Amino acid sequence: MARRDTRELILQTSLRLFNHLGEPNVTTNLIADEAEISPGNLYYHFRQKQDIVENLFSRFAESLLPLIDISPDSPFDAESLWFRMHMVFEVKGQYRFIYRNLSDLENRMPNVDKALKAILLREKTAITALFYALSSREVMRARDMELSLLTDQLMITLTYWIPFADLFDPQGFKDGTAQVKAIARIFLLTLPYLNEPWRGEAEGLAQAYLGNLA
Amino acid sequence: MARRDTRELILQTSLRLFNHLGEPNVTTNLIADEAEISPGNLYYHFRQKQDIVENLFSRFAESLLPLIDISPDSPFDAESLWFRMHMVFEVKGQYRFIYRNLSDLENRMPNVDKALKAILLREKTAITALFYALSSREVMRARDMELSLLTDQLMITLTYWIPFADLFDPQGFKDGTAQVKAIARIFLLTLPYLNEPWRGEAEGLAQAYLGNLA
Repeated sequence: MARRDTRELILQTSLRLFNHLGEPNVTTNLIADEAEISPGNLYYHFRQKQDIVENLFSRFAESLLPLIDISPDSPFDAESLWFRMHMVFEVKGQYRFIYRNLSDLENRMPNVDKALKAILLREKTAITALFYALSSREVMRARDMELSLLTDQLMITLTYWIPFADLFDPQGFKDGTAQVKAIARIFLLTLPYLNEPWRGEAEGLAQAYLGNLA
Repeated sequence: MARRDTRELILQTSLRLFNHLGEPNVTTNLIADEAEISPGNLYYHFRQKQDIVENLFSRFAESLLPLIDISPDSPFDAESLWFRMHMVFEVKGQYRFIYRNLSDLENRMPNVDKALKAILLREKTAITALFYALSSREVMRARDMELSLLTDQLMITLTYWIPFADLFDPQGFKDGTAQVKAIARIFLLTLPYLNEPWRGEAEGLAQAYLGNLA
């Protein structure tokens, strides 16, 4: 196998194992075993597990960041925002091992922890910018304090829907309902603060979602 | 010092250190050091750190469970429910170390993990029972799917407000605003589904809360 292919095989195998078993429970030996390569060959590509995690994290960040950032000329219609949100949950689901051990990341992998916290702050800034834009276009109407609490509530969902699904609905990742439920909760949270006709439009999208769950 | 007092000193010192530094980062030696007793004396009371964690967890469960359980003759007025919720957040804040490492608890302390999951399920059952009671009294009005999503959203807040505050607002535990914000978010989530005059009543309580934050 070409060197580049082996490297890719290691990353793909690691991602699958990390998501399935939890990153702290996966050793480099297990990765080599699953990838059907020798530990020495793995070591040639990645000196330690942390290098693999950092590589996967970079891919995650590259996929996620373009979806998060909001510019003044971003489209703000319900369809575009829905698509963007859907992709955010898709990407997080693909790299879900990252969101499972947020609390001990700081001690174990300070680099990854720092980068992840930067992403979370950027996400929060994006939501604030989005709400500001929607309010100034009179799509949305809420008091400042409500917007601040709503932003926090969205951040909790965006950050903890993965460990939450692990606890209450572990099958949800396999059949995709964990993502659908999380997105439906985002709709549920935001709907009360939308003005008509946008509220009706968003409610239509939400109904389609809720229909998938029934 | 009497044996009973030493035992209590160890538990109180451990709780403070676990909350402050995170339980995985605290050794029995550090606990003995902080409590100003010998490691041998600590060992006499608790054979290993896990025994201390299990003892603290039992106290947590004893404080929390009476607050969670809803019986058909529980008072359902806004004031009583507010008080109950306030106490739930107080108790969780006192034992907040428990909520910080939910993901790796299963591997490290299966007993505690199992007991905590049972508490989470009981909390979810209580919310479902409460919403059922409020709906049948026409205090609340929502479709089944909305109630199910709302219950999940409340559970996310009740379970992850502690690691969330760790990430975004670590000072919030010291000045008590972490609890206040979490309770305000619970109000925010539930208000849109209340009927008048209960909605107005709950909004009044929420306003008092939001006022504390401004």
